[in-house]
Amino acid sequence: MSDFLDDFRTMSVFGATPGGGVERQAASAADGENRAWFTSWLEANGFAVRVDAIGNIFGLIERIPGAPYVVVGSHLDSQPLAGRFDGAYGVLAGAHAVRAAAAVPGGAFNLAVVDWFNEEGSRFKPSMMGSAVFTGMLPLETALATADPSGVTVASALDAIDGRGDAAPIDVVAYLEIHVEQGRDLEDTGSTIGLVSTTWTAHKLEVVVTGEQSHTGAARMADRRDALYGAAELIVAVRRLVDGFEPELLHTAVSEMYLDPNSPVAIAREVRMLVDIRSPERGVLETAVERLRAEMAVIEGRARVDIEVRGLVEWSSGPFLEEGIVIAAAEAERLGYSHRRSATVAGHDATNMKEVVPTVMLFVPSVDGISHNEREFTSDADMLAGLEVLTAVLSRVAAGDLDATRDSGRSE
Amino acid sequence: MSDFLDDFRTMSVFGATPGGGVERQAASAADGENRAWFTSWLEANGFAVRVDAIGNIFGLIERIPGAPYVVVGSHLDSQPLAGRFDGAYGVLAGAHAVRAAAAVPGGAFNLAVVDWFNEEGSRFKPSMMGSAVFTGMLPLETALATADPSGVTVASALDAIDGRGDAAPIDVVAYLEIHVEQGRDLEDTGSTIGLVSTTWTAHKLEVVVTGEQSHTGAARMADRRDALYGAAELIVAVRRLVDGFEPELLHTAVSEMYLDPNSPVAIAREVRMLVDIRSPERGVLETAVERLRAEMAVIEGRARVDIEVRGLVEWSSGPFLEEGIVIAAAEAERLGYSHRRSATVAGHDATNMKEVVPTVMLFVPSVDGISHNEREFTSDADMLAGLEVLTAVLSRVAAGDLDATRDSGRSE
Repeated sequence: MSDFLDDFRTMSVFGATPGGGVERQAASAADGENRAWFTSWLEANGFAVRVDAIGNIFGLIERIPGAPYVVVGSHLDSQPLAGRFDGAYGVLAGAHAVRAAAAVPGGAFNLAVVDWFNEEGSRFKPSMMGSAVFTGMLPLETALATADPSGVTVASALDAIDGRGDAAPIDVVAYLEIHVEQGRDLEDTGSTIGLVSTTWTAHKLEVVVTGEQSHTGAARMADRRDALYGAAELIVAVRRLVDGFEPELLHTAVSEMYLDPNSPVAIAREVRMLVDIRSPERGVLETAVERLRAEMAVIEGRARVDIEVRGLVEWSSGPFLEEGIVIAAAEAERLGYSHRRSATVAGHDATNMKEVVPTVMLFVPSVDGISHNEREFTSDADMLAGLEVLTAVLSRVAAGDLDATRDSGRSE
Repeated sequence: MSDFLDDFRTMSVFGATPGGGVERQAASAADGENRAWFTSWLEANGFAVRVDAIGNIFGLIERIPGAPYVVVGSHLDSQPLAGRFDGAYGVLAGAHAVRAAAAVPGGAFNLAVVDWFNEEGSRFKPSMMGSAVFTGMLPLETALATADPSGVTVASALDAIDGRGDAAPIDVVAYLEIHVEQGRDLEDTGSTIGLVSTTWTAHKLEVVVTGEQSHTGAARMADRRDALYGAAELIVAVRRLVDGFEPELLHTAVSEMYLDPNSPVAIAREVRMLVDIRSPERGVLETAVERLRAEMAVIEGRARVDIEVRGLVEWSSGPFLEEGIVIAAAEAERLGYSHRRSATVAGHDATNMKEVVPTVMLFVPSVDGISHNEREFTSDADMLAGLEVLTAVLSRVAAGDLDATRDSGRSE
């Protein structure tokens, strides 16, 4: 499987940054180069390439005419100044796993690998866009019309890299994804394979703070309605929410913010920001959001601003299919790799797919849990171990084992 | 003088906004249109127009070949979504005052009106750029090379509106400026004319907060080094600085801020912001800055970020020439307008000019002190009163009275 490592190194050249990471945001030139290389790899390895209307790239191996597909995948796009493993590892491992599984005769289903468009959501919101459109959670037209901060739409950005196709949706019977953990649990417990069993619940609140533009120096302090000051009080309140709960039971952050007019001499009249709140427990999340809304009312008075929650995006938490976890655990065991159940805080395309088909998600360790950073790192040994387990689980699922366990009534 | 009001209404059309204000940032298309109209007005009224290398527009009336000039002026550029009085009133009033004063025979000096380039500094920093270059406080090359947030330089922006000339500096013997107050003191005390006697001291600190980029959701709270959270704590600290002093003895604000990567799913690795601190008392300002630096150290620990003050721009406070205040008070008295001494918190081109020549600055009331806002308003009656007093003071200064008082030894 050493050619996997060669391919991974080749892939890591596209959008490479001086800091050892990559920057290939959705539909950027670097994303386009990487997609082109991946497409040629698929064709060179006997896959039939199909691109759909939102830019998802499918590599198909049809062994049984008309049979549904077991799909393995992740995403090739990245955050700005990101690591080279996040997403890219899963797509390439998926391609290699499908190629290996297809080489074994038999099997009940066809096989496919997929690169989901814009999983990161750093350039175009929401994240996990390609899989959301594929699963019908997001209308295609809405996704295509979404603009980045500079006003470029998904449609025109995709066209700029020749990234849109007209492939009809394939019939998916099961979905598999492998990803770097983006946390420290595997490393801290000395485990090689994570068996993802649950997703944290996440609320993303679009908040608008409205004040009144005035002279930064001349306006009396008592007369000011400073939207940036109000926003700062809110960011501090968001951070302090976690103090009211057990450690690591609540994650909060504000990482995106826009202010108007953003002038050195005019107090901000409006600040727009995204508040991110996540917890493994829905009750904790709801309590935290309640407390934040109460804080907002206090800040409105203190800073003489208006705070409005304009939108709320929610990912519901939920378990992954138990049968899939059982099969993955058995294969890791058989291959001699330590494993443990994991929860994912981050959203993944698997989070969307598991709502519509049986889904299995695996993690490999990520050193110090560093993620969305050029210093993100997973060892070659761990990448190969993950590929080996993924290939074995794919073979089981492609043979109909997951389906069989479901039919046997032990399902949900 | 009703043609002054007609001219002012004509001028207020350039860059007019739906909210009743104007938006004509330095060297924007709207600024260019306004400058072109003003230039044609000068030519139609017998002024010789001269534009210098940083885009300052001078309208000259040379009565005594080779004699130095008494210059009256302000600025035509504006903040984003700004009021139509700030700066524009002073330039047009200056032009009308010069025209009226020139019509009276005699006088010891020549007369000129000036539109200083980029007083606002919202698009290109620093503010008061044109007068800073004219007085030698800022190198021309530095000013021309300054870029706006989108990377456009002053040089290319000026060229785009045909705004650069090659006029040699004129010899200035005194400078006069009239401006809307941008405060409530005149209104609160029922005064019509403000005699500016001092400027507040201002410190502008360029602050960079450095953290580490990581996953907005997945990174453990304890591992985070969130630059935006650190910046928010700092903005709150800047605002709370004023609580340690007498009301209105200290003004603080942060109104400009940039964050990287500004992604909905990656914690900010860097935030750059401008901290604005002003006081009429240098001691208060220095104590406030000391306290802020101590706060910064605390926040560095709490948010696990680094806070660096990279640059500090300072305007020293200082009195305006007493003799000018005496003459202006006498003329306001003679014309029957109530008047009082004023301090200016905002910087003005007069703040630069008073460092090099005898300078007189007048204020007219600004309703509710609203400034850098479309709702800024000064009544026609107050504008005309200001023009009348400005014209009278200009005639006195042009006759050599200010010079005489200085020669008489009562000066500094």
